[in-house]
Amino acid sequence: MPITANDIKRKSWLEVSSDSDFPIQNIPFGVFLTKENIVTVGTRIGDFAIDLGALQQLNYFEGIELTDDMFMQDTLNDFISDGQKTWRLVRNRIAEIFDEQNSKLRDNTKDKDIIIFKMEDVEMQLPVLIGDYTDFYSSKEHATNVGKMFRDPENALLPNWLHIPVGYHGRSSTIVPSGIPVHRPMGQTLPNGETTPVFGPSRSVDFELETAFITTDVNIMGENIHVTEAEDYIFGMVLLNDWSARDIQKWEYVPLGPFLAKNFASSISPWIVTMDALEPFRTKGPKQEPTPLPYLQQKGKHSFDINLEVAIQPENSEATVISHSNFKYMYWTMSQQLTHHTSNGCRVNSGDMMGSGTISGPTEDSFGSMLELTWGGKNPIKLKDGTERKFINDNDTVIMKGHCQNGHVRIGFGEVSSKLLPPFVRK
Amino acid sequence: MPITANDIKRKSWLEVSSDSDFPIQNIPFGVFLTKENIVTVGTRIGDFAIDLGALQQLNYFEGIELTDDMFMQDTLNDFISDGQKTWRLVRNRIAEIFDEQNSKLRDNTKDKDIIIFKMEDVEMQLPVLIGDYTDFYSSKEHATNVGKMFRDPENALLPNWLHIPVGYHGRSSTIVPSGIPVHRPMGQTLPNGETTPVFGPSRSVDFELETAFITTDVNIMGENIHVTEAEDYIFGMVLLNDWSARDIQKWEYVPLGPFLAKNFASSISPWIVTMDALEPFRTKGPKQEPTPLPYLQQKGKHSFDINLEVAIQPENSEATVISHSNFKYMYWTMSQQLTHHTSNGCRVNSGDMMGSGTISGPTEDSFGSMLELTWGGKNPIKLKDGTERKFINDNDTVIMKGHCQNGHVRIGFGEVSSKLLPPFVRK
Repeated sequence: MPITANDIKRKSWLEVSSDSDFPIQNIPFGVFLTKENIVTVGTRIGDFAIDLGALQQLNYFEGIELTDDMFMQDTLNDFISDGQKTWRLVRNRIAEIFDEQNSKLRDNTKDKDIIIFKMEDVEMQLPVLIGDYTDFYSSKEHATNVGKMFRDPENALLPNWLHIPVGYHGRSSTIVPSGIPVHRPMGQTLPNGETTPVFGPSRSVDFELETAFITTDVNIMGENIHVTEAEDYIFGMVLLNDWSARDIQKWEYVPLGPFLAKNFASSISPWIVTMDALEPFRTKGPKQEPTPLPYLQQKGKHSFDINLEVAIQPENSEATVISHSNFKYMYWTMSQQLTHHTSNGCRVNSGDMMGSGTISGPTEDSFGSMLELTWGGKNPIKLKDGTERKFINDNDTVIMKGHCQNGHVRIGFGEVSSKLLPPFVRK
Repeated sequence: MPITANDIKRKSWLEVSSDSDFPIQNIPFGVFLTKENIVTVGTRIGDFAIDLGALQQLNYFEGIELTDDMFMQDTLNDFISDGQKTWRLVRNRIAEIFDEQNSKLRDNTKDKDIIIFKMEDVEMQLPVLIGDYTDFYSSKEHATNVGKMFRDPENALLPNWLHIPVGYHGRSSTIVPSGIPVHRPMGQTLPNGETTPVFGPSRSVDFELETAFITTDVNIMGENIHVTEAEDYIFGMVLLNDWSARDIQKWEYVPLGPFLAKNFASSISPWIVTMDALEPFRTKGPKQEPTPLPYLQQKGKHSFDINLEVAIQPENSEATVISHSNFKYMYWTMSQQLTHHTSNGCRVNSGDMMGSGTISGPTEDSFGSMLELTWGGKNPIKLKDGTERKFINDNDTVIMKGHCQNGHVRIGFGEVSSKLLPPFVRK
């Protein structure tokens, strides 16, 4: 374990407020654009963005084997391909460079000017080129809630659900970072009681509170991985808002699954928080009963205690937090998901992204979608400005946050915040 | 229309046998590797592979605006991004260069040595980097057959099918060109009459006879395209064997669609045949009743008369053709599929691939999968060597071919041929 970077006593010479998601123990990875239109791989401490390309050029990574342009790229894919050993060396080195005891960069104003940016002066980009995006469906509470509403209340959970980390393929081309607004989709829907569909703007645009993990190169085609190895291939996690149009979904999804109801947009938080940073928050997930088949069996703690929340902010108004959930409620673990994914020999590459599925907890205020929070629109949610929501309105901003906290340190994801615009108008 | 390249009277100074899929009127695009380990974009006439990178370097594309390294790449994505006008200029120029009347290259032995390869001396690669792969489900006969077997014989076709070109997302990372063998996948299945699944090699590996089209950059996120414009964004077509494991599919696919049953491999023919080359074979598809919603309505001929066949070749034995089908049986057109795909603002990029769905015709010998040909294994198929097949055996090679033919010219795809190997054994 990378004791160095995670050392709880370490402090940075960069200012970090006590409630920051990004103390020196976090050291997430992302890609940002500077005001000079330079794109670089970076990390973040407090409210400062750190240009890893510049750090490398100025020799701060001396002794770590890295290709010359490893960080002067517009994606993290190559760095992630280098594997866990390199990630740890780089993360530990960054922790050393920014340690309050280390004067090398701290006292070098010229280098600092080149390397360090205020967060407000950079624009976060998509951190990876996502070759393939898979979305799982691993919250038992969510699968049960959806089953009750869309299918049979008596047999809400389908027979395969307790045996398979059910998942499906999503669309990579419409994954966008926090801050990019999303248009309300148009689509086919079947009005209640009718037999002929209509085409128009979706009337039930929803969020789905998820996390996602980013993989390194896992296997060659045909090869599977063992569940005990799976975690080594996971680089880190982000928050994911898997936008969904419920009315389109209801009409299109049988028999081949959700398609246009989902692929108009998926928004992610821009900083990938490494599994090493999340290590202190490892915990047990729910008991798996019946015992999974041997290829999915694992012992020990394979979930993570990550507090999650969702807020809706109407235009020109304050935000209302409408859900509190936690990643630890997920039934299937990330290592089980990844193991299952490769069990048939499916190739998984560096930069591939796998969503958790909607993270709903056991209580009504911990559900991870409007569909569940309002129970299909039956129980609207009241916002602080007095207005009600069954689903998301035009010009609402949906804000998801996530962080881990123990007595010593807070490791967070920042946020994924995206505004829902009215349908696109062609010029 | 590009009369020049399609001119039926044109002959090449390169030898082309009368039954070749690749006369000078075809001019498909692909990527190949030479014995000197050079990867280049190329085309094919008869049994000759033509290095377009070399052609460009030797100035044969003078007067056409192309970036310097347009063809010295390992994918066609950049060329496809350049759009229809450029595709046509390049295709027409190639037709001119290889016209039997044109002595420029014909009589230049030095240049010919650099530019022209025998097909047997090159290795075909995947022609595009496929960002996103979508598979449709657009044969009414196939959807009906599957519905009868997997769901309700009385209501085989689901209510949405006649209104929506139903589709779902596939996996890009396991799309391979013809010639690459595929391993029988392992996976979870539920034995008949049991309630607990088992894990092991799939016992019903099947092919699906499909075609696929490759797009150029279609839209920005949020934007849709009009059905009348859609064809302009389609670069060309390939043959697609969408390998499927029926027992895995049956257990996993409700409610989110096929996943591991499909994503272990999809094989494509390596030459992309342009829509311009297919233009003479335009025909009407089946009547669409009920009339689709306005955004999907189109007039005129939007299908193509493409003869398709599937053969199984056991190890060390001759091949048996087991199905004859035709692309013209497809209910939904490619332009309707692409229009539907962008109707919610989903972004489609250069190099994206969209599969037709299994192409089953109206008669039992025109079905596009073993599932249908043997009716779920009930009616095994007899091969020429006397053996029977319910599904595909280890070491069988599945060969799909496709071509168009009229009184004047034959335009073909070559083949997609792939051997099914036993399950992968980890070293």
